[in-house]
Amino acid sequence: MASLPNSVDAALRQRAARVVPGGMWGHLNAAKLPDGYPQFFARADGCRLWDVDGNAYVDLMCSWGPIVLGHHHPKVEEAVRRQAAAGSCMNGPGAVMVELAERLVATIAHADWAMFQKNGGDATTTCVTIARAGTGRRKVLVARGSYHGSAPWCSPSVVGVTAEDRAHILHFDYNDIASLEAAVDQAGADLAAIIVTAFRHDLARDQALPTAAFAARVRQLCNAADAALILDDVRAGFRIHSAGSWEPLGVRPDLSSWSKAIANGHPLAAVTGNDRFREAAAAVFVTGSFWCEASSMAASLATLEAMAEEGAIDRMTAMGQRLRDGLAQLSSASGVAIRQTGPVQMPMVLFDDDADFRKGELFCATALRHGAYLHPRHNMFLSAAHREADIDRVLAAAEKGFAAVRGAG
Amino acid sequence: MASLPNSVDAALRQRAARVVPGGMWGHLNAAKLPDGYPQFFARADGCRLWDVDGNAYVDLMCSWGPIVLGHHHPKVEEAVRRQAAAGSCMNGPGAVMVELAERLVATIAHADWAMFQKNGGDATTTCVTIARAGTGRRKVLVARGSYHGSAPWCSPSVVGVTAEDRAHILHFDYNDIASLEAAVDQAGADLAAIIVTAFRHDLARDQALPTAAFAARVRQLCNAADAALILDDVRAGFRIHSAGSWEPLGVRPDLSSWSKAIANGHPLAAVTGNDRFREAAAAVFVTGSFWCEASSMAASLATLEAMAEEGAIDRMTAMGQRLRDGLAQLSSASGVAIRQTGPVQMPMVLFDDDADFRKGELFCATALRHGAYLHPRHNMFLSAAHREADIDRVLAAAEKGFAAVRGAG
Repeated sequence: MASLPNSVDAALRQRAARVVPGGMWGHLNAAKLPDGYPQFFARADGCRLWDVDGNAYVDLMCSWGPIVLGHHHPKVEEAVRRQAAAGSCMNGPGAVMVELAERLVATIAHADWAMFQKNGGDATTTCVTIARAGTGRRKVLVARGSYHGSAPWCSPSVVGVTAEDRAHILHFDYNDIASLEAAVDQAGADLAAIIVTAFRHDLARDQALPTAAFAARVRQLCNAADAALILDDVRAGFRIHSAGSWEPLGVRPDLSSWSKAIANGHPLAAVTGNDRFREAAAAVFVTGSFWCEASSMAASLATLEAMAEEGAIDRMTAMGQRLRDGLAQLSSASGVAIRQTGPVQMPMVLFDDDADFRKGELFCATALRHGAYLHPRHNMFLSAAHREADIDRVLAAAEKGFAAVRGAG
Repeated sequence: MASLPNSVDAALRQRAARVVPGGMWGHLNAAKLPDGYPQFFARADGCRLWDVDGNAYVDLMCSWGPIVLGHHHPKVEEAVRRQAAAGSCMNGPGAVMVELAERLVATIAHADWAMFQKNGGDATTTCVTIARAGTGRRKVLVARGSYHGSAPWCSPSVVGVTAEDRAHILHFDYNDIASLEAAVDQAGADLAAIIVTAFRHDLARDQALPTAAFAARVRQLCNAADAALILDDVRAGFRIHSAGSWEPLGVRPDLSSWSKAIANGHPLAAVTGNDRFREAAAAVFVTGSFWCEASSMAASLATLEAMAEEGAIDRMTAMGQRLRDGLAQLSSASGVAIRQTGPVQMPMVLFDDDADFRKGELFCATALRHGAYLHPRHNMFLSAAHREADIDRVLAAAEKGFAAVRGAG
């Protein structure tokens, strides 16, 4: 089958190659995706996305997480317009900051307070800084392979990073209590915090929900050492449970980091914490030029309200289940075995016997040509804008993908 | 004289005290300002600002730098509306990213490439990471007291920061060649970079322009060691010279960090670099969920175009000079001695014999009550929206401030 038109994208890539190192930075570099994936986008609406050549997709990446209600949600955009018409970036915050902090404290189970930033990495780094300030200790336990941002202490790459940037980072394996206990022992009296993602959503690997025993043990160990349990809810936040992603497990963190879905695509991050760490949070110096920008806070408040009104998490769950069931059926019918892991709202689809991801890439590239934007190695995201017809369109594209993989095999 | 009405602000502060640690974070906490300063703002337009109690000010903080064309600049806001109506936070960048990178490369003298972030601190940290990647070395020289962000390696506070976060940071004194040479010697073969602000704009201290000899020596030392000269233009950028703040000195950095004024209040930061560091910039892993957000890039492109069309830097310079001349005259007439330092576009006003800043605080608190928003310890900012009548209004308020200081003395 012929490729999609891509001459505008190709011309932009040539220009970008001259003025942006490598043509694009980080995880957004389309060179890391199968051939045929566009680098540049022109338009988005609801759960649909158009690249610069006019190709349309039902999108299952949701901008890598932020778009939780669909693009151009009327209530969110109206809240932004209203705030921006008054003032957004001023000498201090607007009243909306207080309203948003109150809303987060009322909604998030462990939260006695909130503070705001711009990047998910600002939030995770701020949590670590607060944990160290509050405990007077230094060691931070991180699960091997978990992503907490691209700051030197946590970047998945060590290029340009010094050994000292990670001097106090110790590792354990997610869901592995013995490895966790060993890391706690290693930290000894210097344990400041254990930071965990809401579930294991590492790149290019089956996802794993936390076991109840693991989550409970993390909490016990933090209690015993008087260390901070940091839940990094940047990626999963607002898609699992409105009170926090570990609330269904009955385990409450001391500090949580939030971003991505918090404002339906408007740039915002947050840290929430309990009273144990309030004083430390007030004592650390963290700030940024745009951290009190009122428009993104207005977007967040409207996003949280609309999500509650629309039952957004239930919708994402229903549509994610429809996708999972459909993919399982197609896989079975085609005889091409896949693994679907993690919560259905954040699907990960990996192929059996596919160490080099060639099956997954062929599957995704084929589905792309049939109008579904999927990812072969990163978890995907549902939004509350996805409807049955959208999922069915994705499944129709996926059917072509399975056929291509079967044909190639 | 009676205080300004502040009951709405006071009520919001009480609510904030419950749900935000310390009531507000970082430099934006109004508790660090004289009594009477509002914490919360309701509205802004041009160079005017209204607090939540309806008090109006001619603003000389420009949101701590970002507002360079005045709030609600029609061309900037129209560009944002147009981009947002198409799509802003998508699965990758819009074409506007390429246009903006091309514009920066065409305008900024040293720049062969650009990449984008959200915080000024993202940009400075990225510069350091690129410098280390490109040189394979670790030591970074920072001027004592210079502000480069609130990340652990550079925060003015060490609360929650470990010694290892700064293991490879060495200090020198701005404009002091001997101290710079000593730090270079100390770094030895491990010198990765020297990072400098465009001029010395430290808190609570007279500002100082870089001497030609100092700037030239920084460049020579970096050349001799094959290290990176990083110009931190986050605060001064786009107010001194459109090609970069050291262009009038004839000294070009290898890497520059930009933010604040780059998009007239929309959240954006950038790193620009030369070809020497292109490969390293492509090799490091730095990224963020909102770093390719198209609306802020559209705002930036429109901001840079409007600044050129309007001769924004010349305007800010003329209005800054009018303010400086007027304040000098008022100081002289009142017999209250002040020091005005740094470029006129970024005024710093400090009082003689005022180690505890009580004169400065009384001056600013009085001017505030007469409708001028000034800062007693931080440099201020002009915008291209300030007109002669606005400056004259500030001067009328300042006259009351000088009278108050004289009366108290």
